[in-house]
Amino acid sequence: MTYRVPREDIDFILRNLADLNSVLQLPANTELSQDLIDAVLDENARFVQEVVAPLNGKADVQGAHWKNGEVVTTHGYKEAFSAFAEGGWQGLLHEPEHGGQGLPKVLGAVVSENINAASLAFSLCPLLTDGVIEALATVGSSEQQKKYIPRLIEGRWTGTMNLTEPQAGSDLALVSARATPQDDGSYRIKGQKIFITFGEHDLAENIIHLVLARTPDAPKGVKGISLFLVPKYLADDDGTIGKRNDVWCASIEHKLGIHGSPTAVLLYGAGKGEVGEGAVAYLVGEENLGLQYMFIMMNAARYAVGIQGIAVAERAFQLANHYAHDRLQGQDIEGSDGPVAIARHPDVDRMLQTMKGLTEGSRAVAYWAAVANDMSRGHPEVELRTQAKALYEFLVPVVKAFSTEMSIEVTSLGIQVHGGMGYIEETGAAQHYRDARILTIYEGTTAIQANDFVGRKVLRDGGKVAYSLAQSMRDTLAELRKQAAGGSEDAAGLKLIAMRLEDAIQAYERGIAFTLTHAKQQLRAIFYGSAPLLMLTGTVLAGWQLARAALVCTGPDSGQSARFEKQKVATAVFYAAGVLPRAAAYADTIESGISLEHYAAQLHVQ
Amino acid sequence: MTYRVPREDIDFILRNLADLNSVLQLPANTELSQDLIDAVLDENARFVQEVVAPLNGKADVQGAHWKNGEVVTTHGYKEAFSAFAEGGWQGLLHEPEHGGQGLPKVLGAVVSENINAASLAFSLCPLLTDGVIEALATVGSSEQQKKYIPRLIEGRWTGTMNLTEPQAGSDLALVSARATPQDDGSYRIKGQKIFITFGEHDLAENIIHLVLARTPDAPKGVKGISLFLVPKYLADDDGTIGKRNDVWCASIEHKLGIHGSPTAVLLYGAGKGEVGEGAVAYLVGEENLGLQYMFIMMNAARYAVGIQGIAVAERAFQLANHYAHDRLQGQDIEGSDGPVAIARHPDVDRMLQTMKGLTEGSRAVAYWAAVANDMSRGHPEVELRTQAKALYEFLVPVVKAFSTEMSIEVTSLGIQVHGGMGYIEETGAAQHYRDARILTIYEGTTAIQANDFVGRKVLRDGGKVAYSLAQSMRDTLAELRKQAAGGSEDAAGLKLIAMRLEDAIQAYERGIAFTLTHAKQQLRAIFYGSAPLLMLTGTVLAGWQLARAALVCTGPDSGQSARFEKQKVATAVFYAAGVLPRAAAYADTIESGISLEHYAAQLHVQ
Repeated sequence: MTYRVPREDIDFILRNLADLNSVLQLPANTELSQDLIDAVLDENARFVQEVVAPLNGKADVQGAHWKNGEVVTTHGYKEAFSAFAEGGWQGLLHEPEHGGQGLPKVLGAVVSENINAASLAFSLCPLLTDGVIEALATVGSSEQQKKYIPRLIEGRWTGTMNLTEPQAGSDLALVSARATPQDDGSYRIKGQKIFITFGEHDLAENIIHLVLARTPDAPKGVKGISLFLVPKYLADDDGTIGKRNDVWCASIEHKLGIHGSPTAVLLYGAGKGEVGEGAVAYLVGEENLGLQYMFIMMNAARYAVGIQGIAVAERAFQLANHYAHDRLQGQDIEGSDGPVAIARHPDVDRMLQTMKGLTEGSRAVAYWAAVANDMSRGHPEVELRTQAKALYEFLVPVVKAFSTEMSIEVTSLGIQVHGGMGYIEETGAAQHYRDARILTIYEGTTAIQANDFVGRKVLRDGGKVAYSLAQSMRDTLAELRKQAAGGSEDAAGLKLIAMRLEDAIQAYERGIAFTLTHAKQQLRAIFYGSAPLLMLTGTVLAGWQLARAALVCTGPDSGQSARFEKQKVATAVFYAAGVLPRAAAYADTIESGISLEHYAAQLHVQ
Repeated sequence: MTYRVPREDIDFILRNLADLNSVLQLPANTELSQDLIDAVLDENARFVQEVVAPLNGKADVQGAHWKNGEVVTTHGYKEAFSAFAEGGWQGLLHEPEHGGQGLPKVLGAVVSENINAASLAFSLCPLLTDGVIEALATVGSSEQQKKYIPRLIEGRWTGTMNLTEPQAGSDLALVSARATPQDDGSYRIKGQKIFITFGEHDLAENIIHLVLARTPDAPKGVKGISLFLVPKYLADDDGTIGKRNDVWCASIEHKLGIHGSPTAVLLYGAGKGEVGEGAVAYLVGEENLGLQYMFIMMNAARYAVGIQGIAVAERAFQLANHYAHDRLQGQDIEGSDGPVAIARHPDVDRMLQTMKGLTEGSRAVAYWAAVANDMSRGHPEVELRTQAKALYEFLVPVVKAFSTEMSIEVTSLGIQVHGGMGYIEETGAAQHYRDARILTIYEGTTAIQANDFVGRKVLRDGGKVAYSLAQSMRDTLAELRKQAAGGSEDAAGLKLIAMRLEDAIQAYERGIAFTLTHAKQQLRAIFYGSAPLLMLTGTVLAGWQLARAALVCTGPDSGQSARFEKQKVATAVFYAAGVLPRAAAYADTIESGISLEHYAAQLHVQ
C-alpha cells in the first residue's frame, strides 16, 4: 500500500482550526494566494508519495554503511535528495534574501509532516539543515549568511548540529570540546561528538557542522559554551570547494530504527586532513553565548520532531486501517453470514479510532502552534506579537513531547491491529514502531521537555498562558453544550465530548494549580509530576481541537464531504471516550507528588 | 551487566502474598520441603544466569537460519538445550508417572519466569513442549502418553502447536487443513500452517506437532476441528526414529524480535518424504473436539506468555536501573557539587519505580493465580477446588493480557531511561522492547483475551468471582487505614495507597457493573470496553498486591531486609501515585461504550 498525504484533514485544519486565513492577512503574505498554496501542497504530495515514500522500507533494510571514514547511504537517496533540492523544498520557509521562498511556518509544518510521513530517516537531513540555516540567519555574520545559507538552501551542502559528547548528553554543562583561537580570527577545534545525525554522508558535496565547544578561558558550565561553524571542506566565498578539514567520521551507530539516517561519531582534530591539526572553525555570534544560540535551533528542531511524531503516526494509521478493511476474520458481533473485515470488530475499531484521534488531534495542535509562530513574527501589533510568541513557546514542548509519546502508542497499536502479521518485518508496521522510538529521546527527552515546560512555560509567567488556554477551552465547552441542545443525531455524541472535555479541563487546571502552589517549597514534588503535566496538557489540547472539529462538522457548513464530517465526529467521540479520561489520571499522579518526596531515590543496584 | 534472578522478591511473594505454604500443605505435596524448594530455585538461578542469559543478545544478532527446509539455531543453543534437558527442567511440573517431578504450578511459574528473563526466544521451545505434554497427559491415549511424553520430558523430542493458517488467525473457524482417515486408524494431513514456533530446528532428534485439521465429514466452523499428532519422524514405541514424515518447513519469518526462535511455515502433504503423500497423523482424543482440547493447552500457554511479560519486564528494569545508577548527568534538584547519577532525578526515579511496580505487581498476581491453580487440582475439598478453579480461570486472561501489555510499557521506559544509548542496539534495551512486542499478540491477542474475560469470566457467573475480588480488596483497604492510623513514618504513604486503591476499586466495580448491566441489550457497547476492563482489572489487582506488600513491609515482621522493605513500600507508593489513577480512566472509557455504538465502524479506506 502506498502512503497518501491526508490532504482533506490538512485542509480542514488549516481552514477551520488553525486559522491559516489570519496568517494570509499578515503584511508579509499579501502576495500569497490560496491557489498558490494549493499548488505547493499538490506538488508536495506528488513528490513525497512518488519519490520519497517508496524509499522508506528499502532504507530500513539497506541502511547506511560506513567504510574507511565515509558513509554510503541507501541506493536511491542521492537521486531523491537531488529532486528535493531541485524542487526548492529546503528553502520553503527561509527568507527570499537568502534564496528561500519565505512561506509561513504553518505551511512549512504541513510540508514537513508530509515528507516525514514518507520517510522519517530521509527527512532528517533536511530537518537538521533547516536548523543550521535558522541559526545562521539569526546570529551568523552577514558574510556567513551570504556564504553558507544559499548553498544549504540549494542542497549543494547540508548541515548538522553537534551537541552531544559521550559524557555530555542531556547535561550540556559537561561539554568539553576545545576551541583554540588562531591569529587569523578563526579557531581550531579538538574533541569528540556523538549522535550526529547525517554527520557524514554522500548526498552533498559539503557538510556544515555547527559545533558546541569551549574556548580556553571560558567559564565552567553552560555559560562557557560557544557555537562554531566547521565545514567538512573549507570553501571559497564563491563556494568553490577547497581543503579537507580535520573532522572525521569514526563510525556510525547500529540503531533500533531510522536505519536510512547515518548517526555519526565525529572526531575533531585527528590531524589527518589538509589543514594540519585541529578542525578549522569559525565563531558564530559571540563567545560563550553558544547555548543560547543553540536554543534558537532547538526550538525549531523540537517543533520539527513533534511533527515527525504526527507523520509516523499518520503513516502507521493508514497501514493499519487498510489492513483492517482488507482482512476478513470472525463473525460480526451483531451476526453475519461469514467472516467480516476486522475493522467491524469493536476492539479493532477502538484501536483504529484511538490512532486516528491521537494523530489528528496532535496535528491540529501543531498547526495551530505554527500559526502562533507566524503571528509572533509577522503581526503588525506588538502586543499581539508578544502574546503569540508566549503561546508558541508554551506549545513547543507540548508538540515535541506529546506528539512523539503518542506516536509510540499509535505505532504500537498499528502492530496490534495487524495481529501476528504486525510482528513480521515485511509488513512494515514494525518499522514505524522502531523508527518512532527515537522521537521521545532526541532533541531533548520528554523529561527535558517537561523541565522546560514547567520551569520556563508554566512557572515563569505565573500560569498566565496556561490559564488563558483553560479559558479558551471553556468557551468551546459552552458552544458544545449549546450545539448539543439542538437535538441533532449527534446530540448524544456532543454531550459525551462536553462531559469528558470538562473533566479534562478541570484536571488540567488541577495540574497547573498544584504546580504553581508547590513550586517554591517542594521542587522535587512538582518535578515528579512534570512529565505527567506535559502529557496532560497535550491530551486535553488535542481533545479540545477534536471537539472544535466536531463543532464545525455538526454545524451549518464545514465545507467538507459528508463522509469526512461523519468520520471526524466519530473520531472526536472516540477520543473523548478513550483518551480524555487519562487527563484526570495524570492530575491524580501530579497531586501525589508530595507523598513521593519521602520515597525519593530509594532504588539501588543489587 | 548480567541478569540476576530477583530471588528476594520471589521469596517474599511466595511467603507473604501468594501463600506457597497452603500449597505445601496439599496432600500431593507432603514430601515437598522448603529446603528442596530452595535447592531447586538456587540451581535454577545458577542455570539461567550462567547458561541461558549469555545467549540472549547473541541469538538476537545471529538469529535462526533456514536453508533447504532445515533450520540452524544460534550457536550455543544446542548445548544450552541439552543442559536444560539434563537438568530435568522440562519435567518440573509434569507427573512422576510420565517421568516428571510433579512440582506445584507456582514453582513452575517461578522457574518459567527466570528462564524467560534469561532469554524469551530460547524459552519458547520448552514453553510449547510443555503445552504438548499437558495436552497429551490430559486427552491423549495411554499409548500416546507412554510413547511421547517421556521423550518430550527428556528433551530428546520437542513439541509445537499448529493452529494458524494464512486465512485463519484469531478465527479458528476458518481452519481448512484436511485429515483423511486411513484403513489402519491413522490419518493423512494436507494443508499449510504458519507462525509455528520452533516448528523446525536442530535442537532435538524429533519434533511432535499437534495440529488442528478437519476430517472429511466434519461440521463447518469450530465444531468440526480435530486435534492430531504429527511427528516429524515416525518412531517405534521404543522411541527408535523411523521414516521422515511428510511435513516440511517452507521458510521462517523475519521478525521484529525473538530472533533466536524460528517461526516456521509448515507444509503438510508435499509428498517429499518417506511415507508417500500426506503427513501421517494420529487423532488425539475424539474427532471434532479439537478446539476444546486446544483450550487446555492454550490456558497453560496463555498463563505462560503472561509470565514471559513479567520476565522481560524484570530484565528491562534491571538493565535500566543499573544504567541509571552508573550514568552521571545533571545537578541534583536539591543542589549538588557536580553531576549526579540520573537515578536521582525525579523523572528517572518515576520511570524506574513505574517499571518496578508494574513488574512486581504483575508477578504477585501471577504467582497468586498459580497457587489458585494448584489448589484447584489438589485441595481435598471439592468446594474449595471449584472456587479455586473459577478464580484461576478468571485470572488467566488478566495475567496474559495485563502482564504483556505492561511489558511493552516497561521495556519502552527501559529505552527512555537510557536516553540516546537506549536506541543503540548494543545497549540491549532495544532488544527487550522488540522481543516484548509479540507477547500481546501470540496465544491470543489482548482483544481475544478480553473477549474471553468478558464473555466467560465476568458474564457467565453473573460477576460472582469479579465481585468477590472487590470484597477482598476492600478488606485490604480497611487494614491499610488501620495501619496508617498507627502513625509510623510510612503513615502518609499508606494513606496515599489507601486513597488511590479505593478509587481504583470503585472504578473496577463501575466497570464490572456496566458490563453486567448492558450485556443483554448492548453487546457492541460492552465490547468497546472489553480490553479496557481487562486492563483495569490487571491494574487494580497488581496495585492491591503491592498494597498488601506494603502492609507486610510496614508491619511487625516481614522477614525481609530493611532495605527490601523500604524499597517495596516506595514502589507501592509510586504505583499508587502513578498507575492506580488509570483505573478510573479505564472505567470512564468503559461507561462511554453506549455513545460509541452510534459511531461504530465509521472508518473507511481512502
